[in-house]
Parts: sequence; C-alpha cells; structure tokens
Amino acid sequence: MKILKERIKKDGKTSDGNIVRVDSFLNHQIDAKLMKSIGEEFAKRFKDSGATLILTIESSGIAVGVMTALAMDLPMVFAKKSMSANINKDVYAAKLHSYTKNSDYTAIVSKQYISSNDKVLILDDFLAMGEAVNGLMSIVEQAGASVAGVGIVIEKGFQQGGEKLRKDGIRLESLAIIDDITNGSIVIRE
Amino acid sequence: MKILKERIKKDGKTSDGNIVRVDSFLNHQIDAKLMKSIGEEFAKRFKDSGATLILTIESSGIAVGVMTALAMDLPMVFAKKSMSANINKDVYAAKLHSYTKNSDYTAIVSKQYISSNDKVLILDDFLAMGEAVNGLMSIVEQAGASVAGVGIVIEKGFQQGGEKLRKDGIRLESLAIIDDITNGSIVIRE
Repeated sequence: MKILKERIKKDGKTSDGNIVRVDSFLNHQIDAKLMKSIGEEFAKRFKDSGATLILTIESSGIAVGVMTALAMDLPMVFAKKSMSANINKDVYAAKLHSYTKNSDYTAIVSKQYISSNDKVLILDDFLAMGEAVNGLMSIVEQAGASVAGVGIVIEKGFQQGGEKLRKDGIRLESLAIIDDITNGSIVIRE
Repeated sequence: MKILKERIKKDGKTSDGNIVRVDSFLNHQIDAKLMKSIGEEFAKRFKDSGATLILTIESSGIAVGVMTALAMDLPMVFAKKSMSANINKDVYAAKLHSYTKNSDYTAIVSKQYISSNDKVLILDDFLAMGEAVNGLMSIVEQAGASVAGVGIVIEKGFQQGGEKLRKDGIRLESLAIIDDITNGSIVIRE
C-alpha cells in the first residue's frame, strides 16, 4: 500500500535494535484519514474471503478494525487483554507473551460474539513473532469458527511470524513489510 | 442522539448495581456504522469549538476518537494506560483511579503530540465519576493547552462526573444520559 509505505519512510523511527516506532500516525497519535484508507484497502483485498466477522485486539488494533468493519459492513470485536488468570466460563481465552513488554497476558473474547458459523478476518497493526495473531486464531478455533484471513498493517519481515503463517497456509495480507532496520534506517519491501 | 438512545434501550444491560453494559455495540463488539454516526454527531456539536486536536484514552475511547477525528478532519491522540509508575520526561502523565476495576493506573501522552497552542476536544465512551476525563484535562493543562470541550457517548447521570464538569464551566456534550438503573431497567433522559 503505497501511501502507507511512504508514510513509514517519512515518519517511522527505530529504537532498541528491532522496534519500529510509528506512534505519530498509527498507534498513539492516529491519522484517521490514513486509517480509513487502510480499512478500505483491507476491504478490497478480502472482499472475496467470505468473512463474516472482524476480530482484533486492544488497543492498537481497534482503529484498524473499526475502519475495516465500516468498509466491509461487518461486525467487529476486539479481544481484551487481561493481566488476570481468572477467566470465567463465558469467554474464550488465549495466553500470550508480549515480546515488546516482556510480559504475559491473556486475550479474552466473550463467547456470545463469535459463533461456529463465523469466518473470521483477524486484523492487527503489527506482526512480529505472531503471538497476538496466534492467540486470536486460538480463540477462533475454540469457538469452532474458521479463519478467513489475517490482515496486518506492518509486518516485520525480519521476524518469523509472517513466514510461519504463510507456511501454515493462512491467507496473510500485510500492507507494508519491513525487511531490515539494522543501521537505523527502515528498509521496506517493494 | 436518538439512534444511540434506542440502541441502549434495546441492547444495554445492567449488572452489579451501577454497571451499564453496552459491550454488544460500544466497547467489546463494535458497531462501526453507529460509531461513524457518533463521530459525525460530535463533529456537528463541536464544529464551532475551535478544536485543533482530539484526545481520548485507550481502549474504548479509540473507536469514538478515530471516527470523530475523521468527521472533523483533526489529528487524534489516545492516552495510554500504564500500570507502571516509572514515567519518563518525554510524556505528560496523570494518575487515575478506576472505580470499575478498583485499581490505580497512569494515563500517559507523549509531549510531542500536544502543543500549548492546541484546543483539545476530549472524548470518551463513558462518564461516571469523571476520573478519566479529569486525567485527560490534567494532561491538557500540563501541556499549556486549553480544553475545547468534552464529548461523552454515555453519561451516567446518577454519578457525579458530569455535574462537576458543568459546574466548572466545561462544555460537556453527552450523547445519551442514563438517569437510573436501580431495578435493572435503564432509564434514559429525554
């Protein structure tokens, strides 16, 4: 997605070796027009996927999810992150590890919002090791539903999450793939 | 806002005495079309406010914020919640108490995303005791900026947050005000 790649080149920053910082337009300050275009791009790419539901995870997935839900006219659910291990019987839950924060958490979705008939489009802002997406796929599986595809705004091509999903035959659409940030400059796949 | 009030009557639930649950359309599952209408309603109500920036707080404020930012063509920032008290010098921070979760947390905004010239429209999904809004107002004040107004999707009229803001002369626009939920039915102000 051209305007996204240009924006990453213009405003993206790197820190701590493998962190890509895009908090000026994607996950702290949000450019709502760009987010609308991102939603429309996912809608175009997944229009034949048969998706019936969009699933993402708080917090940075929410703006992506709601704009895509609007463009596709689909319901959208965001998984909540809980520090607590006390999960009640009304939710699907998946334990995850955050490499960014170096801590564990649980992703939770109320059972009433996914049915076994759903084809679920999973969306997130970033894909690195694939922890969040794997957790959301586990929730889809627990619900007896199927995965229509995975849409990612920025994939870190130098980490393994994307490669693993493609090997597993999951339809993955990443709007921008960053191949390298060693040396402090962001190399985006053309 | 008529369609919102009707939706609350239709799908809102109550629990634990003073909790209003609207997680089927506002803060777990999200109705993107309704959220777009909410953004357009805030844009209409605040069009003469001189707002230059929209500020909200994760997670449930994000969808409200991004849709209003789109309708008003303004930048939008969401404050992050941190459990950590370790705040660095690059952020504005406000310590808050969550009555829902009965825990303290810190709301954080990077200094680079608010300037002293900004007139800030503060948005959130709920207003009860006003903790989150007060924290966001503190951040605006720390930045030397001013408050253009406060927009709330659902105000709990039986708690004190809204009354306090109005007494302080803050321009508050609540799209729906719930006056009573004792007896388990939701009474919405006409």
